[in-house]
Order: sequence, then C-alpha cells, then structure tokens
Amino acid sequence: TPTFRIALIAGDGIGKEVMPEGLRVVLAAAERFGFELDCRTFDWASADYYAAHGQMMPDDWKAQLKGVDALYFGAVGWPATVPDHVSLWGSLLKFRREFDQYINLRPVRLFEGVPCPLAGRKPGDIDYLVVRENTEGEYTSLGGVMYEGTDREIVIQESVFSRHGTDRVLRYAYELANSRKRKHLTVATKSNGIAISMPWWDGRADAIGSEYADVTVDKQHIDILSARFVLQPTRFDVVVASNLFGDILSDLGPATTGTIGLAPSANLNPERRFPSLFEPVHGSAPDIYGQNIANPIAMIWSGALMLDFLTQGQGAGRAAHDAILGAIEAVLREGPRTRDLGGTASTTELGIAIAERV
Amino acid sequence: TPTFRIALIAGDGIGKEVMPEGLRVVLAAAERFGFELDCRTFDWASADYYAAHGQMMPDDWKAQLKGVDALYFGAVGWPATVPDHVSLWGSLLKFRREFDQYINLRPVRLFEGVPCPLAGRKPGDIDYLVVRENTEGEYTSLGGVMYEGTDREIVIQESVFSRHGTDRVLRYAYELANSRKRKHLTVATKSNGIAISMPWWDGRADAIGSEYADVTVDKQHIDILSARFVLQPTRFDVVVASNLFGDILSDLGPATTGTIGLAPSANLNPERRFPSLFEPVHGSAPDIYGQNIANPIAMIWSGALMLDFLTQGQGAGRAAHDAILGAIEAVLREGPRTRDLGGTASTTELGIAIAERV
Ligand SMILES: CC(C)[C@H](C(=O)O)[C@@H](O)C(=O)O
Ligand SMILES: CC(C)[C@H](C(=O)O)[C@@H](O)C(=O)O
Repeated sequence: TPTFRIALIAGDGIGKEVMPEGLRVVLAAAERFGFELDCRTFDWASADYYAAHGQMMPDDWKAQLKGVDALYFGAVGWPATVPDHVSLWGSLLKFRREFDQYINLRPVRLFEGVPCPLAGRKPGDIDYLVVRENTEGEYTSLGGVMYEGTDREIVIQESVFSRHGTDRVLRYAYELANSRKRKHLTVATKSNGIAISMPWWDGRADAIGSEYADVTVDKQHIDILSARFVLQPTRFDVVVASNLFGDILSDLGPATTGTIGLAPSANLNPERRFPSLFEPVHGSAPDIYGQNIANPIAMIWSGALMLDFLTQGQGAGRAAHDAILGAIEAVLREGPRTRDLGGTASTTELGIAIAERV
Repeated sequence: TPTFRIALIAGDGIGKEVMPEGLRVVLAAAERFGFELDCRTFDWASADYYAAHGQMMPDDWKAQLKGVDALYFGAVGWPATVPDHVSLWGSLLKFRREFDQYINLRPVRLFEGVPCPLAGRKPGDIDYLVVRENTEGEYTSLGGVMYEGTDREIVIQESVFSRHGTDRVLRYAYELANSRKRKHLTVATKSNGIAISMPWWDGRADAIGSEYADVTVDKQHIDILSARFVLQPTRFDVVVASNLFGDILSDLGPATTGTIGLAPSANLNPERRFPSLFEPVHGSAPDIYGQNIANPIAMIWSGALMLDFLTQGQGAGRAAHDAILGAIEAVLREGPRTRDLGGTASTTELGIAIAERV
C-alpha cells in the first residue's frame, strides 16, 4: 500500500477542535481507498508553544519535518497572548515560504443546504477556483520607518514580485483553466493605480497567456472584480491573483457562498520538492473556541484536497477526494448541522457523520 | 446670493452623457435653494485631448482652474486609445494629489426600488460611509525593475504612508463617526500579512482613537472585512481604509446594494485650500457609451455631495443635498428607470425626472 507521511499541526483555538474530525475523515477515506497515512502530531506553531518558548516553533522545525509529505494544519493565531503578525510570520507564513508552497488553491462553491447570501443563486451558480500566489508580492517585511516617532514619520512598505514567482503561478493557473471545461481565466490586477508592479504583472499574464490559445482571459481590476464576485459570480472559472488580492478574493468568494467556515485551502509546492500544507481558510476563532461547536467541514475538505494532491495521477486519491466531497455535500443537504448553519450538532458529531458516509 | 465656481470636466465615454444630467439637477437645486453656480466647461482630461496633444491635460491646467471651488467630474479612461495608467495618472490621480484631496468619501446605501443582490436585505440594512485615503499609500509609481527582460527579473513596488497623511484621514473618520448616531468606526487593515506599513497603521488608529472615547472601534483585516460586507452589512457605520483597501471596499459596498452605477464620491480637501472633486465611482463604460442609456444617478448624487460640501455650515447646501437625494429616492422607487435597473428610460429622461422633483 502507498504510504504518506503526514504532520498534524493543530495550532490554536478551534484548530484544535477541527483537527480530530479532519483526521477522522481522512483516515476513513484512506482505509476505504487503500492507502496508508503515517501521522505524527506536533504541538508547536501555537500560542501555547510561544508562551513556553518565546518563539512559535523550535529551531529545528525543518529537521523535525524531514521526510514528511504533507502538513495538515488547523489554524494559528491567538491575539490575546501573541500579536498576529508574530504568530503568523513565525509559523504559517514561514511554511509557505520556506517550503516554497507557491500555489494557494482555494475552491469556492455553493452547496445545497447552505443558505446563500446572494439572492436567487443556486448550487452550480458559484463554482470557481481562486489561485493565489503564496510566497511573495505584497506580503513582506521589507521597508521601514523614517523620522520615527515624530510628526514627519514616513513609512515605506515594499512589495516584491519576481518573474520566477509570477510566471509559475500564472502558468499554473493557465494550465488549470486549460484543463477545465470552460477554460476561462480571470487575472486580478490593479494596474491603473499601482503603477510599477501591476502593469508589469499584466505584461507577464499576456506573455504566459500567449502559450494558451484555448484559454479565454479577462483581466480585471481588483475593485470591480470584488464587485463582480457579488453581482456576477457565474462568470468565474479560474481566478489568479497576487498574494494580497488572492487573500481578499478567497475570503470574499466563500462569503458569497454563505460562510467562510466551509472554505478549504491547499498550499502547494507542485514539484513536491517540499511538503505541501492543507488548512481551512478560517482562523482560530477565539470567540467560539472551547465549546466544540466549530464547523469542521473546512478542515475535512482541506483533507480531501490533501489526499487528492498526495496521490495525484494514481486515481485512488481523486476517488478519496470525491468520496469526502460527496459526504460533505450529503451532510450539508441532510444534516446534521453545526450552529453556524442553524443546527445544534457538535464539531464531533459532524466529523462522525461525514466519516460514516465515507 | 452665495456664488460658487464650478469646473465641469466630463472626460470620456459615459462621463459625457451623465454630465449634462448632473448639471441639470444641481442647477435646479441651486435655483430652488438660492445660490449661484458659475460653471465653466473644460474639454481636457479626456482621450480626445490626449489624441490631439499627447498628454491628458494642458501644462497650465492649474492656472486654468484658479479660483475654482469644485471640480464636477464625469469619468476618465478610454483604453482603446490611452492605457489606463496613463489617462488616470495624467488626470484624476493628479487632481487628487496636487489638490490634496485626501479624503475620498463614498456613501453606500441600499434604496427602495433597486433589487438587492443580498438575500433578505431591505433599505436601512445597508447604509454606511467609506472614508478612503486618497493621496498616498499603495498608489505610487515608486520602485522599479531589476534584471529587466531576463528570467531573473525582480520588481519592487513601494507603498508610502506618512503620519501626516494617515493621521488626517483617521481623524476625519473618527470625527465623522463621532458625529453620527451609532458612533461606530471600522478600521481596515492587513497587519497580519503586510508587515511594516499595516502594523504601523494600526498603531496610528489606536493613537488617534485615544482622543475619541465615544467611538467604538473595530479593526478588521481586509480579507474578512470584505467577507463581512456581504455577510453582515448592518454592522457598518463608518469604515476607514487606505487608498487601495478603500478602493476595493467602495466598489464592493455599492455592489452589495445592487449596482456600482449609483455610487457617488467626494474627493475632498476639507481645509478648502484647493478645490474638491466630485465624481461617480463608475468609469467611462466604453461598452454602453453613445446610446444615451447610462444611469446618471451616480453623477447626480455626486452633485448633491458637492453642494453639501460647498455650503457646509450654511444650511442651504444641506437642504439642496437632501432635496436631490429625496428626488433620487423617489425616482428609484417609482421610475422612470434606465436599462441597468430594468427600465427603458434614457439618461436624459432620468435627469429630467430627477430635476423636476427637485
Ligand atoms: C480608475 C482608478 C484609478 C480609480 C482608483 O482606483 O482610485 C477608481 O477605481 C476609483 O475608485 O476612483
Ligand atoms: C492569517 C493570514 C496571515 C492569512 C493570509 O493573509 O494569508 C490568512 O488570512 C489566509 O488567507 O491564509
């Protein structure tokens, strides 16, 4: 049997509650579809670890993860004890960069049984993929403050786009669009306002696009693009965006499907030189932590993406993915439901219900 | 009678169609409420001017606008003949900066008679103000390309935030929130990802906020904030954001009210050292230009904001503003309607209908 090594990192808050349910479901799927998951749990990348050690992760975190195929990740962030930028730059953002997970793939999909905040939209109307650049762009700690602490204070923040980093995410998105029925790609930009990087980004999109004659492309400024996620969601198929724009679109898109509580994400190093990371889009939700009421579906769906990626080309992973997604669909349609969707089921009950259907 | 000098700049595309209707209505309001508008038309800041002169505006544009109190502005942009970043940096963005219009005020409001894309929302549920920083931040042409044209190409794009520029927009937003019934302010940020400027921005929001004990404040990252514009629009009162984030939120907000075709904006220099500029949020819409079907309401509403600002403290302008807004409300409720709202009325018919009610 094919065996994959998985690092389990629950992190903070509801990350710790949804992790066991995600695991329950992926293990059920692995058993049914005939492969093995060799899982190891890590308690770092958490506020608790930070409280004890003054840093988010041990110095040898990379050595500890040696040989791992994927990180199955809950949520990180506990602003009461660690400032967000410290916890995130010390864990999640480090993984994305040091493991070169340059694709952040975020499916957006409206399900039957989930009330849609957009009037008159039904399942099928909202069904697209956001491909977010995940390692560079607007997320940097480059820059600084001049005349600090005075009235003349000036802050420079630098964004960095490389051709290497830009071309590969654009190419991934074109390939993905090309593999789909509609073959449509939307490129997020803001070249009319952000005058250096974004016109250049548009140029790279044109250059890569010249190799994909069958893909229809639509460049849209992020302002009007956000508006169209609300007004015309049916027009989207694959959407590619920079780190920041992808971050925004991949919260906004799920919001239009009723909740960001269901949205999964895959942080991929497509060449498999480094482990990829799979995590819900939602955060650690301190406000509901401790009650076992968080919806574990985003975690479970992220697990499905993990199995699909791990076994790509082998069939079994895709089947496991589809089985999990089918179980999620069925549970969303028929219940049980967690509180966010109007039910009373616990996190655990939902995990069990989905695992049983797999 | 108080007299105000207005520069009329229609710009491109439907800017040229909605301008006469905006003017019709503000002139009607001025007559009724007893003040005079001394209007002068300028044909520059347009693609036509660019075609003839190779630049968007004459060298002496500032001299030509000397003594003007406000710019009433249609829309600029005609990508078929001028790249957007050229037309915009050569006109609109120049006005915003050189006239130090550091506040971009953008009301978001759901009207009776306009189908809402959000399920179950009624007029009153969506009613807030976006205050956007309008002169600095992410919109710069600072930075550059290294290893240009090679595989190693690297692009740096700099954002610039000054304490001067940040404090004044935050202060304006706190004052505005403080003057309203709910006294609630949402501060857009992304300090968990954009590691230099945004934590600093948060710090300035705290510093200014310490002077406004009655205002309740909520800092939200732009990703989840965008999601909440869709999921929880009732929670917003005043929203303050950087240039880029404000740009996104002020297209997204209007989208949730059914169309960005109604949204107005005021580009203000509150100290009146320079003329302020009033323009619809929508662009020049090349696809519908020439048919006289564009909805002029955003232009008309922008005119109402202009009258209010010009006569602030004098009563008459506020009354004129309210009369125009009342007329817009009545027409949206009872018709006539332009094609974007399911009717067959022309741009002109709508302008006449609103002017008559004023
Ligand atoms: C046209 C563009 C440069 C402009 C902006 O981004 O500011 C527009 O979108 C706006 O919101 O006024
Ligand atoms: C927590 C934060 C740094 C992160 C991001 O902005 O990338 C999150 O919002 C996400 O989308 O994964």
